[in-house]
Amino acid sequence: MKFNPISLEALKALSAMVGPEHVVLPAATADMLRYTHDETEDLRFEPEVVLKPANATEIGLIMKFCHENFIPVTPRGAGTGLSGGALALHKGVILSTERLNRILDIDERNLQATVEPGVITQVFQEAVIARGLYYPPDPSSRGSCFLGGNLSQSSGGPRAVKYGVTKDYVLNMEVVLPTGEITWTGANVLKNATGYNLTQLMIGSEGTLGIITRIVFRLIPYPPQNLVLLVPFRKEEEACAAVSKIFMAGLVPSALEFMEREAIEWADRYLNFTIARPADERAHLLIELDGNEMEQLYKDAERLYAVLEQFDVGDILVADTEKQKNDLWQLRRNVAHAVKANSIYKEEDTVVPRAELPALLKGVKEIGARYNFKSVCYGHAGDGNLHMNIVKAGMSDEDWNNKLQEGIREIFDLCVRLGGTISGEHGIGLVQRPYIGIALNEVQLRLMRGIKNLFDPHGILNPGKIF
Amino acid sequence: MKFNPISLEALKALSAMVGPEHVVLPAATADMLRYTHDETEDLRFEPEVVLKPANATEIGLIMKFCHENFIPVTPRGAGTGLSGGALALHKGVILSTERLNRILDIDERNLQATVEPGVITQVFQEAVIARGLYYPPDPSSRGSCFLGGNLSQSSGGPRAVKYGVTKDYVLNMEVVLPTGEITWTGANVLKNATGYNLTQLMIGSEGTLGIITRIVFRLIPYPPQNLVLLVPFRKEEEACAAVSKIFMAGLVPSALEFMEREAIEWADRYLNFTIARPADERAHLLIELDGNEMEQLYKDAERLYAVLEQFDVGDILVADTEKQKNDLWQLRRNVAHAVKANSIYKEEDTVVPRAELPALLKGVKEIGARYNFKSVCYGHAGDGNLHMNIVKAGMSDEDWNNKLQEGIREIFDLCVRLGGTISGEHGIGLVQRPYIGIALNEVQLRLMRGIKNLFDPHGILNPGKIF
Repeated sequence: MKFNPISLEALKALSAMVGPEHVVLPAATADMLRYTHDETEDLRFEPEVVLKPANATEIGLIMKFCHENFIPVTPRGAGTGLSGGALALHKGVILSTERLNRILDIDERNLQATVEPGVITQVFQEAVIARGLYYPPDPSSRGSCFLGGNLSQSSGGPRAVKYGVTKDYVLNMEVVLPTGEITWTGANVLKNATGYNLTQLMIGSEGTLGIITRIVFRLIPYPPQNLVLLVPFRKEEEACAAVSKIFMAGLVPSALEFMEREAIEWADRYLNFTIARPADERAHLLIELDGNEMEQLYKDAERLYAVLEQFDVGDILVADTEKQKNDLWQLRRNVAHAVKANSIYKEEDTVVPRAELPALLKGVKEIGARYNFKSVCYGHAGDGNLHMNIVKAGMSDEDWNNKLQEGIREIFDLCVRLGGTISGEHGIGLVQRPYIGIALNEVQLRLMRGIKNLFDPHGILNPGKIF
Repeated sequence: MKFNPISLEALKALSAMVGPEHVVLPAATADMLRYTHDETEDLRFEPEVVLKPANATEIGLIMKFCHENFIPVTPRGAGTGLSGGALALHKGVILSTERLNRILDIDERNLQATVEPGVITQVFQEAVIARGLYYPPDPSSRGSCFLGGNLSQSSGGPRAVKYGVTKDYVLNMEVVLPTGEITWTGANVLKNATGYNLTQLMIGSEGTLGIITRIVFRLIPYPPQNLVLLVPFRKEEEACAAVSKIFMAGLVPSALEFMEREAIEWADRYLNFTIARPADERAHLLIELDGNEMEQLYKDAERLYAVLEQFDVGDILVADTEKQKNDLWQLRRNVAHAVKANSIYKEEDTVVPRAELPALLKGVKEIGARYNFKSVCYGHAGDGNLHMNIVKAGMSDEDWNNKLQEGIREIFDLCVRLGGTISGEHGIGLVQRPYIGIALNEVQLRLMRGIKNLFDPHGILNPGKIF
């Protein structure tokens, strides 16, 4: 694709569309800075301009103009992404949705909500919980990420194991196409057999097919009770193997998170916590059960204990208070931050059928031993979604820069061999793009590129991402 | 599109691909008959030939040949569809998946199953229940319909209200594209953020984008206990209104079915049942609660009663025995058959946000009064998915043939005005095709046609369906 730089005239036209107070230029160094990176390692790309439109109409004007003038547009939510999807690789416009931040309607009669994409996930969750309703998807960044970004990646989080990921809660979306046209993708209904599923095609497309301007979510009744347990295992593989057994016992926990010893150790230190743990533990499962009645949860817990007894586990910590529960969740949510604070790292977002977790974990350690990198693994074991922070450790700078990618390639090859794929919830974006051919064959890529070309004939929307 | 008739030479080539014993020709009247219709009203279309391939490789050869020779191909499962999707509108080949009928694997460790598309839904359900697992989607035709057909329409059924529809259980599919290429659509994982969601694009595409040859489903633990209740209401609107209230009370029933008085009366008579009902009832809700423990279900039932007490309901029938439960479900599953046995009819598959059901029901009756048709309404009220059998009643033949479509158009207009759409689970196929413009705008249609053209550049796969 051949793009045009933004001329002074174009800049004037674009500024007029949003109002000059909603434009950020590179000269405004401090303001611009936060639009040059996301949460992906240490990547930095500066756009020519940041535009902050107020609504779909303004976005439509911007897109039409950029389409006609071959100016690249990179949509951006809160910039919490982990694959570089919101970075202006080809310069041009960063289109921030931060001003589209209203919860428009919480419809208790229909258990639906209509929101703009710039609403922070946790703000939305709390607003619906206040009505006794539940929006389960909860990525670790939920305190700062936007719902629109969650849709772009089909974000998951710990509760996905019972409740599904973002895509499972979206009924309908208003989107602005790369050509500037505005349309809804479906209808506000729980079942829809009317034409192709444009809603699900758009979700997880990483801002390459359109810009989401409204979202209709389905909600469910809020389960008010929960039990949180931290279970130490003396063998990593047993912690992974227990995951399958828990489901086979008929239990569906609302979270089932795996943390290697080092993950919990680093997070513990990072947060200045001192969670009691046996000295010989190698990994933990953080397990949450939820429901309407405590009595039922205690019964479920008994079943769970019966499963765990089959493994070599240490003393199980049952969180007694809300504070203890929060501490355990803080620990889990801060693993990545703790690793980041400790070392240069790269984060991978592998996913396999859940019973293949022990094989994946073992394989990653073997690969690490050969390449001389360390890996700190944790994540949504109930979904088979294992995050791995690859830490520089003993690797030389040269190896880190040049050889590591071969090791990552081996990890992804292993995932695919095990029936999995290379991203479970972080997306491909920029950083996994070189590896896409491991997960997708030529036929799939041809179809996806064809869809991209259909939606975005000038290729201006988020160019250089996914493929 | 311009298609070619099948020449004698082409017939020879196609027959050789599947073996002559797996070919049905029009001359074989009795064998051919069942491929000329589905369950949609009284439509009849005879193909030039029926081919029954054994596997994806054979299907790939057929598709490549038909693609190159511009011969239309209509894929067909069990022929239980209600929108004419499996009918050979443009003649050519009917490609039956009936020989791809193996359950290839039930993977208890991963709670997944791999099947071929010609497996009967109920056969699959029973096979997984025998392992303590559950595949919830259960269209009324589950005793005869194929899983491949269920995917083509994203079928629902009563349990969708709690468990979701077919699309929510499909992890991955092997498909043969219209050009003959064979590919998987995704990976065997619960979360996938790797490229566009081809799996969900293919589901519900009514056999217009590819032919499904393998399906990987996710399964869940089987909830062994349930309670089934039949609740009579003295006002139809109250039965509809109660549906929203049940969810707002924090309950998620595993089924929540609405039946107008006449629906239950006709089914009762058709089955020769005598279910006790108050004389003044106008509608019923059939409610099922499920879970692991009866004790919990009794508690849920208490909550449910507290909601129902707010309405003018008659004596609630609680099914005590398995036979009583089966009878109630038989009643529900046979409404359409009962109507069919009584009168000429057309069936519509409307869907709206669930709190709009009273408005939809009222509107349909008003429209019927103006056009002089009768409607027997029933369906998945928990999902806002109301089936309506439009019965000829006092309409003249001329009005039935010429004016009814205006009435149907009014019903669909109403659905869309209420935030809904024109098909919840039956698909558009042939019979709803004239109405597609009510539900989809020009932008959506252009994108869908573009996708169709990308997958099927010669337009040979299931031509004349959807749009």
